[in-house]
Amino acid sequence: MSTAQETADGEAQPWGEVTPDAARRLLLAAVEAFAERGYHATTTRDIAGRAGMSPAALYIHYKTKEELLHRISRIGHEKALDILRTAARAEGSATERLADAVSSFVRWHAGGRTTAKVVQYELDSLGPEARAEILGLRRQVNAEVRGIIEDGVRSGEFDVVDVQGTTLAVLSLCIDVARWFNVNGPRTPEEVGALYADLTLRMVGVADAGQR
Amino acid sequence: MSTAQETADGEAQPWGEVTPDAARRLLLAAVEAFAERGYHATTTRDIAGRAGMSPAALYIHYKTKEELLHRISRIGHEKALDILRTAARAEGSATERLADAVSSFVRWHAGGRTTAKVVQYELDSLGPEARAEILGLRRQVNAEVRGIIEDGVRSGEFDVVDVQGTTLAVLSLCIDVARWFNVNGPRTPEEVGALYADLTLRMVGVADAGQR
Repeated sequence: MSTAQETADGEAQPWGEVTPDAARRLLLAAVEAFAERGYHATTTRDIAGRAGMSPAALYIHYKTKEELLHRISRIGHEKALDILRTAARAEGSATERLADAVSSFVRWHAGGRTTAKVVQYELDSLGPEARAEILGLRRQVNAEVRGIIEDGVRSGEFDVVDVQGTTLAVLSLCIDVARWFNVNGPRTPEEVGALYADLTLRMVGVADAGQR
Repeated sequence: MSTAQETADGEAQPWGEVTPDAARRLLLAAVEAFAERGYHATTTRDIAGRAGMSPAALYIHYKTKEELLHRISRIGHEKALDILRTAARAEGSATERLADAVSSFVRWHAGGRTTAKVVQYELDSLGPEARAEILGLRRQVNAEVRGIIEDGVRSGEFDVVDVQGTTLAVLSLCIDVARWFNVNGPRTPEEVGALYADLTLRMVGVADAGQR
């Protein structure tokens, strides 16, 4: 499969691009603090402390707490878009590409659930400009999934009454994995990914989805 | 349909049973504050202020902030259980009961999304005893939906490979409505409920789900 799979597992993966090391450590500390206590209950002092740094050292890299959230949210959404785009633009039928998109997206939400929760639940904590940028990325995420569903309808593989509603439901199902997934639970991210790929194919009317 | 429908729309509905009036106003104020700023960033002083009361007046009704969250979470989960139980135990085929359960549950999560978000996302903020009680209610919620799916498999209406996984996915789909639903968006709670009932029937292999 694609690079999406390789980068879909580790919680820390999407931060590899952040340099220097101190800036990356601060982002990781912010993700943990926001996930644990919520954005509004977290101070830049808390974040610096978790990263083993002084508040003054934090300000070299990030001017405000909101800048940290914005950076986390942008990287998270760009990674989500990358995963779906890779699946959408791969070779193969719409059926194969939708199954790939859903299983990759689910694995990422299960493996990176701490980041995913912050990215998904603290959207309202962003200021208007940052929020507008992130909503733009979300529209692109939506468009990738909708594009695969439209391809499948055109090719006759899918039977869908409400393309936009079904797109929304498919994305929602994947995103909510970040809320309930438990590493100590009975299912691995791969198993949930496979189950959800089959359930999604059923949602778009692929008749033998359960038997594949 | 059932009483589930009648009580599934208003945000304030589930609090009708809370008396006296001051205790109910404080719960509503706590729901709003927790949803807006998160549990950890909210003080009992904030909550009392929102309810137009003094902190001392709050302590007459609730000893701690956690007691407020516990009460909100219990009422929310009991209402969720009541909605699903009513649908599960109604007359009708498994197909009809599953469609009813999903559409009622979706309407409740869309209409009562502020409460639902607090109930779903602040579960980890509860202490061990309160959390154990709520997890017990969640198991009952799960059992009601699983029961309908098992009925449908037995009667031959449904074709399901993984009953527990499908139950989890159906509940997850409904719960996540609280995250994304927008009163100013293009769909009413009723429309999302109807769409999701059809998608769920497809997930359980009811062949003509889209054409009903």
